[in-house]
Amino acid sequence: MERHFDQETTKLNEKLIRMASIVEEMIRITVKSLIDRNSSVLETINPKEKEINKLQIEIDEDVVTLIARMQPVATDLRFLIAASKINSDLERIADQVINIGQNTVILLKYPQLKPLVDIPIMADIVQQMVRESLDAYIHKDVAKAQKVLNSDDKVDALKDQIFRELLTYMISDPKAIQPALCLILIARNLERIGDHSTNIAEEVIYIVDGKDVRHHHEEQKRK
Amino acid sequence: MERHFDQETTKLNEKLIRMASIVEEMIRITVKSLIDRNSSVLETINPKEKEINKLQIEIDEDVVTLIARMQPVATDLRFLIAASKINSDLERIADQVINIGQNTVILLKYPQLKPLVDIPIMADIVQQMVRESLDAYIHKDVAKAQKVLNSDDKVDALKDQIFRELLTYMISDPKAIQPALCLILIARNLERIGDHSTNIAEEVIYIVDGKDVRHHHEEQKRK
Repeated sequence: MERHFDQETTKLNEKLIRMASIVEEMIRITVKSLIDRNSSVLETINPKEKEINKLQIEIDEDVVTLIARMQPVATDLRFLIAASKINSDLERIADQVINIGQNTVILLKYPQLKPLVDIPIMADIVQQMVRESLDAYIHKDVAKAQKVLNSDDKVDALKDQIFRELLTYMISDPKAIQPALCLILIARNLERIGDHSTNIAEEVIYIVDGKDVRHHHEEQKRK
Repeated sequence: MERHFDQETTKLNEKLIRMASIVEEMIRITVKSLIDRNSSVLETINPKEKEINKLQIEIDEDVVTLIARMQPVATDLRFLIAASKINSDLERIADQVINIGQNTVILLKYPQLKPLVDIPIMADIVQQMVRESLDAYIHKDVAKAQKVLNSDDKVDALKDQIFRELLTYMISDPKAIQPALCLILIARNLERIGDHSTNIAEEVIYIVDGKDVRHHHEEQKRK
């Protein structure tokens, strides 16, 4: 029985890993399109989001089927309910990437405002956060989850820096307002992806250590 | 046994209702502070968010305990896993309200840009969406859930209108840039609250009708 349970969660985990890797790829493609000023980005990422949506439905069903059939103990149960939440977070990350794509299409209607430096750095960090938060879940690795929480602080600092810089562009030239606003919204989307990865990491710390860091981390961020 | 299960879910539902009503109150207080230019908003809403965080932890534990003890059938299981997801959505709505409070504090450092018209309307709609989505869950009311999805379209239209209007202010006067940006971010936060309520409503339609409208609705929005 226990063995079967492990086998089944292996399949579930594989689907989550596939989902995370599609999401990562979506981020990479979208930010590359932003840098290369390639406005056909949505045609590339929309089909990937469809895959994500399909996986999300499957994973939700798998979780229900597994719990109903296996009647797992509380620890395994927490792990499975976490899978369901992580599933939602990954799907919402994909939504954020689509949003970045849409903002990119609007942005590319305007001449280039400035060479992009911080946004690609931010994108690299959040991509890594997605991967590591899922890794932390699969391997029940609290240290890795903690690393994701630390990265989130870097993401927030970068976002503040991007905001400040773009504000100066907007104030000095009214023509910069619309493209700068697009970039601000893109930075927000990336921040939001960082937040979702943080949610996943906090969930891991909770199910492994029983420590609820969710709100503690939030409060620290606000200081 | 079945009866006990109903009793236990009643308690769980009561906690979710309490959570939703605190969240609604937080939205109401925060938007009133924004209109009245009352910069002590965070002192009022921060303690409420602490309550929300406490409830979130309790509800997550209740769900695990209920499933482990009762070993419910698939239908009930879906209902309980949905509770866990709705719990996360409500907590994230509270986060968004805190964010509105923080943006309000920054905004109030600048002279009033314009009388607020659309933002209070948007806030009223999302407040109602929070209430109705939770109601839809408690009463397994698909029609009410559908109503929430329709409201979300209104919220998105209002947000676009707010963006466009604020952009004209920013372009015509550089001194308007910072306060207008705060208002744009607040409109985004409200939109996000609408999205979370939509997530709850879609979850309800899924567990009651077995129809997955989650991605269908998303795609419609993008047209």
